[in-house]
Amino acid sequence: MEQAPTAGLSTPVTELDARLRELQRRLQARAVDGALILQNADLFYYAGTVQQSHLYVPAEGEPTLFVRRVLERARAESALAAIVPLASPKELGEALLRRYGALPQRLGLELDVLPVDRLHKLQRQLPGILPVDVSPDIVGQRAIKSEYEIGLLRQSAAIADAVCERLPELLREGLTEAEFAGKVEAEARALGHEGIIRMRGFNQEMFYGQLLVGPNGSVASFLDTPLGGSGLSAAVAQGVGMRRIGRGEPVVFDFVPVRHGYITDFTRILSLGPLPVQLRSAYEVALRIQAAVVEAARPGAPCRALYQIAVAAAERAGLGEHFMGYGTTRVRFLGHGVGLELDELPVIAANDTALQAGMVFALEPKFVFPGVGAVGIENTWCVRPGGLERLTLSSEELRELP
Amino acid sequence: MEQAPTAGLSTPVTELDARLRELQRRLQARAVDGALILQNADLFYYAGTVQQSHLYVPAEGEPTLFVRRVLERARAESALAAIVPLASPKELGEALLRRYGALPQRLGLELDVLPVDRLHKLQRQLPGILPVDVSPDIVGQRAIKSEYEIGLLRQSAAIADAVCERLPELLREGLTEAEFAGKVEAEARALGHEGIIRMRGFNQEMFYGQLLVGPNGSVASFLDTPLGGSGLSAAVAQGVGMRRIGRGEPVVFDFVPVRHGYITDFTRILSLGPLPVQLRSAYEVALRIQAAVVEAARPGAPCRALYQIAVAAAERAGLGEHFMGYGTTRVRFLGHGVGLELDELPVIAANDTALQAGMVFALEPKFVFPGVGAVGIENTWCVRPGGLERLTLSSEELRELP
Repeated sequence: MEQAPTAGLSTPVTELDARLRELQRRLQARAVDGALILQNADLFYYAGTVQQSHLYVPAEGEPTLFVRRVLERARAESALAAIVPLASPKELGEALLRRYGALPQRLGLELDVLPVDRLHKLQRQLPGILPVDVSPDIVGQRAIKSEYEIGLLRQSAAIADAVCERLPELLREGLTEAEFAGKVEAEARALGHEGIIRMRGFNQEMFYGQLLVGPNGSVASFLDTPLGGSGLSAAVAQGVGMRRIGRGEPVVFDFVPVRHGYITDFTRILSLGPLPVQLRSAYEVALRIQAAVVEAARPGAPCRALYQIAVAAAERAGLGEHFMGYGTTRVRFLGHGVGLELDELPVIAANDTALQAGMVFALEPKFVFPGVGAVGIENTWCVRPGGLERLTLSSEELRELP
Repeated sequence: MEQAPTAGLSTPVTELDARLRELQRRLQARAVDGALILQNADLFYYAGTVQQSHLYVPAEGEPTLFVRRVLERARAESALAAIVPLASPKELGEALLRRYGALPQRLGLELDVLPVDRLHKLQRQLPGILPVDVSPDIVGQRAIKSEYEIGLLRQSAAIADAVCERLPELLREGLTEAEFAGKVEAEARALGHEGIIRMRGFNQEMFYGQLLVGPNGSVASFLDTPLGGSGLSAAVAQGVGMRRIGRGEPVVFDFVPVRHGYITDFTRILSLGPLPVQLRSAYEVALRIQAAVVEAARPGAPCRALYQIAVAAAERAGLGEHFMGYGTTRVRFLGHGVGLELDELPVIAANDTALQAGMVFALEPKFVFPGVGAVGIENTWCVRPGGLERLTLSSEELRELP
C-alpha cells in the first residue's frame, strides 16, 4: 500500500537505545521479566511511534514492536530493529513465545493508565503472568530529559513565544473569550501546534491551556490547577466562556504548546488599558517569587524547599490567601514537570523529590482575586548542573496595551 | 468563595432522575449493590457535572455525589439533591458508611476506563468490595438518547453546518493544511465549540476531526477510522500536515463539533477547481450507499444488514478495495454511535445489534484512493420509530469552487 511519507523527524536510534537500556536496568533491579508498553506517550518515548501496537521490552535482549496498524507507518517512524505485524491482540501470547521462547511471568505494565478490562484481557492472552506496576519506573525515567528531548522542548516553547508576540494584534475589546481563543489557537496551528495535549492522570483534560479574561480567571475548576475557568458548559467546565473582553481586565495567556509530541507551559499577562494597582503589584510579587525560586533551584535542591520559598514570599506580601488559587480551591504546588505529557514529574510541592539535571518543569506563581481575575507568570525551565535554564523566552513585562 | 455563575444550562432534574432510575434497574438486574461513577462523561451523564467527585448510585435509594473540588460548582451545575463534600478519596469508605449504613459488596465500576491502580486504591478504601464491570450497562444505556439529549445533539450538529457554510471563504490555494485547519477551528470556537473531544477507548485521541486535503486523505493511521492523515509529527500521527493546498484536490471536511458536551460527526467534500472524474463518481456512490442504508434503517434493523448493504453496493460499483480505507488498512464498519463520547454504541458493522429508537450515530461511507485522497459523506442520524432523522443539515452537494 502506498503511504505518504511520515511527518517530520524520527527519534534517533541512539535515543531509543539509551531509553530502552535504562528501562531494562530498572526492570532488572525489580526482577521483572519484561515490560509491555501500551500507552501512546510511553510508546512514542520507547519506540518513536504511536501506531497501534504492543512494545515488549525483555529485561535483557532485544525489544520487539508488535504492530496491529499501521505496520508501514511504524516501520517508517520507528528506528527499532524488530517491528513485526500482529493481526490481533489475541495472538500476542503466541507471538511472544515464537520470538522469546517463553512467556514472561513477572510482567511490567503501566498500571497507572491501563484500564482494568485491558489487564483482564492480557491475563487471558498471557496466562500465568504476574502484573507488576512499572509506571513509577517509566514516569521516573521520563522525568529526566536527554539533550535531544530538550531540543524538542525548545521548539515547543518557541510556539508559545511566537504566538505571544501576536497577541497585541489579536486582542480586541468586545471579542468573546471564545473568539479570542480561536484566533490565538489558529496562529498556533499555523506554526505546527499539534492540538492533542496528553495528560497521564485519569479524567485530566486540557485544551490549549487556560486563556482566561477578567473574572473568569478567578473561577476554579475540577482540575488541580491554580486557574480553571467556567468553560463553555458544565460538560467541559474549564477554560474560556462567552463573556466579552473589556478594558482594564487581566488577560491570562496561559498557553500549552505541543510540537513533536513535546509539551511546554507558559503564562503571560496583558490587558487593554491599565490594570488595577492590586493586580499590578501582585504580578510584581509573582516575578519576585519566580526569581527567588530560580535562585535556589539546582540539582539536589528538594522540591519542598522551593515550594516553601514561594509560599513564604506570598505570605510576606500579604497575598497568602490568593496564592495558587483562592480560599478552599487553592492548589498546593508551584509547578509540574512537562514533556510528552503535561502532568509529569517533578511536582514542585511539599515533597522530598530532589531536583536532578535534565528535569524540565513549569513554575507558575499565580494570584487569584475572586470576581476580578488572576495574574502570574509561568515559564518552562530545564535543570542544568549550575541551575535553571529558561526555555520559554518571551519578555516578562506586563503588557498594558493602549 | 465567590464564583462566576456556571456556564450555560443545567441538566434538568427529570433527566437525571430518569437516567439514574434506569441505571438502578440495570444494577438490580445484575444483583449489584451499587455503582461508583468516576469518569467524566459518565459523571456528566448521571450527575450533570464533571467536578472532581465520586457519584455513588445504590441499587435502591438516593444517589450521593461526593465532591472533592469544586463543591460550589457541583452544587450550581447539578440538579442532584445530595451533594456533599469529600476532603479526600481516603474518606470515601467512612462517608459511604455514614450515609448508607453499610459498604456495598458487589460494587459496579467502569472497568473499561478505570485504571488498574485506581481500582487497587478503591479496594483499600472500601475493603471487601467485589468489583463488577457495569460499563456495558452504562454504554448500553447511554446509546439510547432522550429527547433532551437529541436537542443538544442538534445544537452540536448546527456548529458543523455553520462552519461548513464558511468554508468557501476560508479555503485558499497555497494555505498549508494546518493553516486552513486553524482558520476553520477558530470559526468553530467562536460558535461555542468546546474543544475537548471525549473518547472512551484506551489511547483514542481526536482533535476537531480529520480535515485532510489531497494525498493526506489517503494516509491511514493508528486509529480505527477510515481516514487518518499524517499528522504534524510521528508523536500525534493523525490529522493535518504541513502540505500546501492545491487545485483539483479533494478537501475532506471531516469535522467533529462539541457543544454542551455532545458530539456529532460530519463530512463534506469540496475542492478548488474540478475533481478528477474517479473521485466525483466515487462520491456519487457514497451518496447512493447512504441513501440505501438510510432506507433500510429503522428500529429492529440489525447493524449487520446495514453494513452488508453498504459493502455490497461498494463492490457492485467496483470500489470494494477502496471502501472505508484502502487495502490492508480498511476498517470494517460503516458508522458509530455519538453522544458524550465520539466512540459510542451502536457500531454499524457486522454485529447483531438491532437499532432502537433514540440511537444516534454517524454513517460515513468513504472511499480512499492511495496518493490521491478520499471522498465520502457523513451525517449524524437519530433512529425514530419510522426511520432515520438527519441531524446534520448541510447540503450534500460536492462543492467544486472556482
